[in-house]
Amino acid sequence: MESKKYISDAVIRRLPRYYRYLGELLDNNITRISSGELSRRMGLTASQVRQDLNHFGEFGQQGYGYNVEVLHKEVARILKIDQIHNIIIIGAGHLGQALVNYTNFEKRGFYVVALFDNDEQIIGKTIGGKKVQSVSAIKDFIQENSVDIGVLTIPKKDAVEMADFLVKNGVKGIWNFASIDLKVSDPSVVVENVHLSDSLMRLSYRLNNQN
Amino acid sequence: MESKKYISDAVIRRLPRYYRYLGELLDNNITRISSGELSRRMGLTASQVRQDLNHFGEFGQQGYGYNVEVLHKEVARILKIDQIHNIIIIGAGHLGQALVNYTNFEKRGFYVVALFDNDEQIIGKTIGGKKVQSVSAIKDFIQENSVDIGVLTIPKKDAVEMADFLVKNGVKGIWNFASIDLKVSDPSVVVENVHLSDSLMRLSYRLNNQN
Repeated sequence: MESKKYISDAVIRRLPRYYRYLGELLDNNITRISSGELSRRMGLTASQVRQDLNHFGEFGQQGYGYNVEVLHKEVARILKIDQIHNIIIIGAGHLGQALVNYTNFEKRGFYVVALFDNDEQIIGKTIGGKKVQSVSAIKDFIQENSVDIGVLTIPKKDAVEMADFLVKNGVKGIWNFASIDLKVSDPSVVVENVHLSDSLMRLSYRLNNQN
Repeated sequence: MESKKYISDAVIRRLPRYYRYLGELLDNNITRISSGELSRRMGLTASQVRQDLNHFGEFGQQGYGYNVEVLHKEVARILKIDQIHNIIIIGAGHLGQALVNYTNFEKRGFYVVALFDNDEQIIGKTIGGKKVQSVSAIKDFIQENSVDIGVLTIPKKDAVEMADFLVKNGVKGIWNFASIDLKVSDPSVVVENVHLSDSLMRLSYRLNNQN
């Protein structure tokens, strides 16, 4: 149902937060919660929580609130993290290594199936249980395996070309860590740009501009 | 002047993007740009660009547009990245190693002055030119050195306690990578939470919910 309605970017941005907060409630054996209490913990208003979740169905019950386990599963279903997504990482430097070793991704159905680099010193090494392959092997790998998401942990100067190459070979999602807002010409391809420096710059701004 | 006015979170979020886009223009030897052209590149409207920048002063000239170099410097000044910020990283695992080796931070005035871990196997090793110190040395280090920002690349279970410890010892900025929305009781402390998984979950949502 949700694919037929327009969901604002702000709501989509909040969905992973709902998933995280509901997961924490489960970890603390809290099985039911009111929209008021959930909103308080998340720093939102109760009506915002109700509105957000109403986009996707009727989850709460008047006088009862939300069943945490049910809602947690529903949000996972909405985010499609109840499904498996196969990931390849291009760039086996420090950040690529950090990502391949990040076990939280597998908990959410994201499996790193291969790791590529163009550095002869790194190709053939095993990182996070994966043997690093040459970037020249990417095309064959994509044709022989189901790859949903390509992660770019390569320099900015190579990122545009590599993204185009992945898209041309059928990859539908790009998770980009290169310091550029990647755009791809195929509108069916989804790009998510991560700018760690932006976050640090915002911290700097707020650190120096209080009251 | 900017500290006296209320600047919305949305504007603050866009400031680092202005800085990046203006930097790219400079790299391409573009010395002047209209608000229309800048907005087109950034996926904003021209009036949004003018409004955003008007919060901080009069930068454009009718019929001329913006002087890219001047505006780039002004945005750096607004973000306070024209100043030096000293950073310590707590957690010398893969992500901590990736961050200490990320040269882009130094370009923006963020200097990693020390790296700490609680793993005896890692303490004493040199990573990114820094010798990893024991977390037991953090307190003395902060007292003897100027530390602006503490970066947490440690597990969620340790993050709250470590953040409190840093704040108690005078650190005013926390850049948190642990999978939790850290809150600190001191309102003068700024926390910026980075949730890489959130970004990946949004990618999953958009990958599976098009049109």
